[in-house]
Amino acid sequence: VTVALVGAGPGDPDLITTRGLRLLRRCDVLVHDRLVAVELLDEAPPGSVRIAREEFDQEQINELLVAYGQAGLHVVRLKGGDPFVFGRGGEEALALAHAGVPFEVVPGVSALSAVPSAAGIPITHRGIAAQATLVSGHAPDELDYEALVRLTGTLVVFMGLGSLARIAAGLLEAGIERSTPAAVIARGTRVDEQVVAGALDEIADLSAGLEPPALVVIGEAVALRGRLRGDCGAALQVG
Amino acid sequence: VTVALVGAGPGDPDLITTRGLRLLRRCDVLVHDRLVAVELLDEAPPGSVRIAREEFDQEQINELLVAYGQAGLHVVRLKGGDPFVFGRGGEEALALAHAGVPFEVVPGVSALSAVPSAAGIPITHRGIAAQATLVSGHAPDELDYEALVRLTGTLVVFMGLGSLARIAAGLLEAGIERSTPAAVIARGTRVDEQVVAGALDEIADLSAGLEPPALVVIGEAVALRGRLRGDCGAALQVG
Repeated sequence: VTVALVGAGPGDPDLITTRGLRLLRRCDVLVHDRLVAVELLDEAPPGSVRIAREEFDQEQINELLVAYGQAGLHVVRLKGGDPFVFGRGGEEALALAHAGVPFEVVPGVSALSAVPSAAGIPITHRGIAAQATLVSGHAPDELDYEALVRLTGTLVVFMGLGSLARIAAGLLEAGIERSTPAAVIARGTRVDEQVVAGALDEIADLSAGLEPPALVVIGEAVALRGRLRGDCGAALQVG
Repeated sequence: VTVALVGAGPGDPDLITTRGLRLLRRCDVLVHDRLVAVELLDEAPPGSVRIAREEFDQEQINELLVAYGQAGLHVVRLKGGDPFVFGRGGEEALALAHAGVPFEVVPGVSALSAVPSAAGIPITHRGIAAQATLVSGHAPDELDYEALVRLTGTLVVFMGLGSLARIAAGLLEAGIERSTPAAVIARGTRVDEQVVAGALDEIADLSAGLEPPALVVIGEAVALRGRLRGDCGAALQVG
């Protein structure tokens, strides 16, 4: 195996997997997302090549991974969260497979549950939320709001800060309660995490001051926040 | 902090987080799910107390965690996957919070994406699956099959092996294509992983020989399996 698609976890550098960290510490080439914690980038060997994902388009990244892989170098493609949860890991894996380059996938802790839980919100909870749906906020007009409202569990929106007003309006038009609890968590699990919570019909206004990356969580389970916080926030700091 | 609710990851012991492993290596008391890898149990200090979750009911486990926490011991509650994705972590956290016992939550790699990805299936993939829904197979009659069919992404069923025939029938009655790709992954990410794949209308029969724990994945993204496999299976072995 020469190329590893590695999930870096949700933000806190301590939430990478032991396998991911081991591969990172012996890589020749590190291709990383901009949002990956700098503490993790510093785990790569001093002589390794470091390439920021955002300086290239996806096609170029695929070609880079193939080229370094064909050269027999140990490449770590470090991606925020999990490579296959809105991570476009599948596209990179297909490019590698197509070129015959051996690769592996090392799953990571997705923001999906980790970011809400660090903010005291369980996305599933007995008697409150028996299911959860993840959507992307990139194409809010393509969402089936009626079906989303019928599924009574927790709705988690990745990259949804910019389209939050549109998504909230869509859910409200489809008949969801105006008072449905909602939260926006920016830089979740990090020491500088910010959480805004409120009713769905006001959450877009309340979160106007937040910056991406942010996760939106909507549903009754959000109301458990506070009761569940414990020392989550502090404990998820680098330790 | 005295009690940590720690996600052990999806099966492969190498997929625990670095923070989770660190806490495990210095705990006084380890309360673990039956399905957690024995390699992880062996990371607890030699003199530590080990308690198997399955010997008690949930209420008793909550009481145990509170009692050990109040005694000031370092307790690790090691749960399969992520504590808050069908892990009942919320209930334990509420009990601890209610008793005033300091606790933290250390998210883990959920089976949700890790188990499909180790089998070569991305739960989201550009142009194929823009969303994903997680449900539990414990109460198949309570699922809203029409809404699930309307959401055109990937459906992931936890603990769904026993109710797979009922769930497939519900989806088919609600109008999903009979040929919708489906897979059942037993002991995912482990060296003895088993994968069965086929059309939705035959998947229950095909998976008759599998044993829990198993994850069910339904949707067009399942068809990427094989093209994406790379060395996933081998690479996710302990190493």
